[in-house]
Amino acid sequence: MKAVYITRRESFNAAHKLYREEWSEKKNDEVFGKCSNHNWHGHNFTIYVTVKGVPNPETGFVINLKDLSEIIKQEVIEPLDHKNLNLDVPFLKGLLVSTENVVIQVWERIKQPIEDAGGELAKIKLVETENNYVEYFGGEMPY
Amino acid sequence: MKAVYITRRESFNAAHKLYREEWSEKKNDEVFGKCSNHNWHGHNFTIYVTVKGVPNPETGFVINLKDLSEIIKQEVIEPLDHKNLNLDVPFLKGLLVSTENVVIQVWERIKQPIEDAGGELAKIKLVETENNYVEYFGGEMPY
Amino acid sequence: MKAVYITRRESFNAAHKLYREEWSEKKNDEVFGKCSNHNWHGHNFTIYVTVKGVPNPETGFVINLKDLSEIIKQEVIEPLDHKNLNLDVPFLKGLLVSTENVVIQVWERIKQPIEDAGGELAKIKLVETENNYVEYFGGEMPY
Amino acid sequence: MKAVYITRRESFNAAHKLYREEWSEKKNDEVFGKCSNHNWHGHNFTIYVTVKGVPNPETGFVINLKDLSEIIKQEVIEPLDHKNLNLDVPFLKGLLVSTENVVIQVWERIKQPIEDAGGELAKIKLVETENNYVEYFGGEMPY
Amino acid sequence: MKAVYITRRESFNAAHKLYREEWSEKKNDEVFGKCSNHNWHGHNFTIYVTVKGVPNPETGFVINLKDLSEIIKQEVIEPLDHKNLNLDVPFLKGLLVSTENVVIQVWERIKQPIEDAGGELAKIKLVETENNYVEYFGGEMPY
Amino acid sequence: MKAVYITRRESFNAAHKLYREEWSEKKNDEVFGKCSNHNWHGHNFTIYVTVKGVPNPETGFVINLKDLSEIIKQEVIEPLDHKNLNLDVPFLKGLLVSTENVVIQVWERIKQPIEDAGGELAKIKLVETENNYVEYFGGEMPY
Repeated sequence: MKAVYITRRESFNAAHKLYREEWSEKKNDEVFGKCSNHNWHGHNFTIYVTVKGVPNPETGFVINLKDLSEIIKQEVIEPLDHKNLNLDVPFLKGLLVSTENVVIQVWERIKQPIEDAGGELAKIKLVETENNYVEYFGGEMPY
Repeated sequence: MKAVYITRRESFNAAHKLYREEWSEKKNDEVFGKCSNHNWHGHNFTIYVTVKGVPNPETGFVINLKDLSEIIKQEVIEPLDHKNLNLDVPFLKGLLVSTENVVIQVWERIKQPIEDAGGELAKIKLVETENNYVEYFGGEMPY
Repeated sequence: MKAVYITRRESFNAAHKLYREEWSEKKNDEVFGKCSNHNWHGHNFTIYVTVKGVPNPETGFVINLKDLSEIIKQEVIEPLDHKNLNLDVPFLKGLLVSTENVVIQVWERIKQPIEDAGGELAKIKLVETENNYVEYFGGEMPY
Repeated sequence: MKAVYITRRESFNAAHKLYREEWSEKKNDEVFGKCSNHNWHGHNFTIYVTVKGVPNPETGFVINLKDLSEIIKQEVIEPLDHKNLNLDVPFLKGLLVSTENVVIQVWERIKQPIEDAGGELAKIKLVETENNYVEYFGGEMPY
Repeated sequence: MKAVYITRRESFNAAHKLYREEWSEKKNDEVFGKCSNHNWHGHNFTIYVTVKGVPNPETGFVINLKDLSEIIKQEVIEPLDHKNLNLDVPFLKGLLVSTENVVIQVWERIKQPIEDAGGELAKIKLVETENNYVEYFGGEMPY
Repeated sequence: MKAVYITRRESFNAAHKLYREEWSEKKNDEVFGKCSNHNWHGHNFTIYVTVKGVPNPETGFVINLKDLSEIIKQEVIEPLDHKNLNLDVPFLKGLLVSTENVVIQVWERIKQPIEDAGGELAKIKLVETENNYVEYFGGEMPY
């Protein structure tokens, strides 16, 4: 019973801003800095989705990467790519679209489809710039 | 008289869209595809600025990278980082903000300050995503 | 009349070997080393196609990247991806499939379609491993 | 007793295909897609081997990277580089050479030599393309 | 109570050597190889600092990256960048400056400031070259 | 007569400082900043050597990469790797070891051996950090 972890990378380009309407300009600037710019800014986001499981003896696969890629494209890239994360994405509505909050919502969105494809979601890594990224294990803390 | 080329990399994150007001939605979509999304999208842009010249015998430098970095930060990063290229940038106003058009305007903006610092601007490379970038030699065609 | 260079990156995975039938095993090994392994080896090839031109005033584009990507996919990725360069590719038949020879054939193949799309092919870079790549300017020597 | 994890990266280029002889062409194509191409395809594989342990007070090393690199070269790179994973590798014979199955076999192969060199194998990451990789912790599931 | 891990990357360039004064030249060379060169050598080090926690409902942040970046710059980059790790760094004095030993000292140095900023240090990754890096979880062994 | 450019990448890790003995501390600091630190600092340097020529019809090679790699290792990596560029390298003695000056000396050193191996040196790119590099075409200015 040898579990292996397999990861698929996909990417999307999106605009967003970090801003709380109920705060003053000054407080928004103090907390969110340049990320609070009214007219938005944007990023090339890269997402790594990791699925764990014992390789299927017939195929050698933990999950077929075609299926995994298809799930990510349908559930994540399609709704987020070339979009405004604050305005265009139903499942992010009303949220502060920090990378932390986005990764949690993406987890909720792809967990079940991955199970339906026979895999178990283990981790999502969401890279915002070459200098910062978040990782999420479904809320668990492996270390 | 041995000319050397030296390059400094900097980066900025910005929102933009490609859209012509006088065109129909349909035509905008045909030409610009997902890049015409009304609510903007964005990128992590990376810029490489190349200066050529004979190294100064006293310093070994074509240009002091502190000076070159300072010029890029002041003339490019400051006005573009965490901004909306269509709305927030005076020197891009009225332009279709394709990467091609942006690189030309950046050239015009930093050519003189680099000369004032004793260098000669040779090339700018502007990377929009890992899959596409533009290069500009001041309009010249070296190949 | 300001020419800009725009580059699109695509990738393909292929098997090949370097081997001359009319040579002895020993000579093949001396010249081609491990690349002459009978049972093939392979690479993740990355291709960068550069087109030059003056940006269209209406679109801001030297060439529409959708068109350029489509040409590369149809003429290069489709016939080469997950293929054996020695056996599966009609336009490489009979050739020693060194990276040098492949890049020349790819140039011949995409030059005209890019012109038909309104662009001018300026350069192809073909990366075989992180440690070696070739560049081709249609046979010209810009430096 | 402060454990540190140290990782060494090495790489190899190999051909392979995913194919079950007892299946029809059609089923092979449905499951393995382009990876089932008869005439093989190939990749630049990158392997990261992670060893854990308390740094030796005399050397500051968890394991001497010269030794670790030597083990990987002898046990992994030598038998796999510029080879056909289906045909040329005794310890992969009879296996479906999915990245999952390869990483498990590599673990079995280097675990003991690393222990003999005073280290403890903690993880192997095997990268097939920039878009997919597997990780293996000896079958354990840390998350 | 959904914990997320957030990582900030920073970099520094430093000289060092691995050498024990009480050992002979020969033994130093046997153990440390080229790293024992008397006149030093150097690296571009890259450091990734990972903090874990539940995102603050008001800000969406595990920790404000401005604060995290500031701590790393003050406690790590300032004392190590463009320095000699053996000679110039008070908190490394008397240590064999292997990457393993450096990462442990960096952990001790930034753990408390990160807690003071409301975060919990989870992991540090310190990259010495593209071929080797260490990871440290405060001495814990998550796998 | 179709010329192709082929490039080989190699790397070395070295210490150096930028400092003029005849200048005051203050002037050294003004011109060279942190690079003038008495006790040295260091980098992971990456070198790309580009050779141009018409592929040999028998081998498909502009130059055999084994030969090119061997020349770079012997003439550049061997004398520079894990060395102090100011103290340990005969062919850099007396020079201000700016990246500009190093690339010129490396050119002089490998030009003839590459010609002896049947190639023509076209360009050297020397990368000091991810943010700066120099390029040298033997003193020519192709753009």
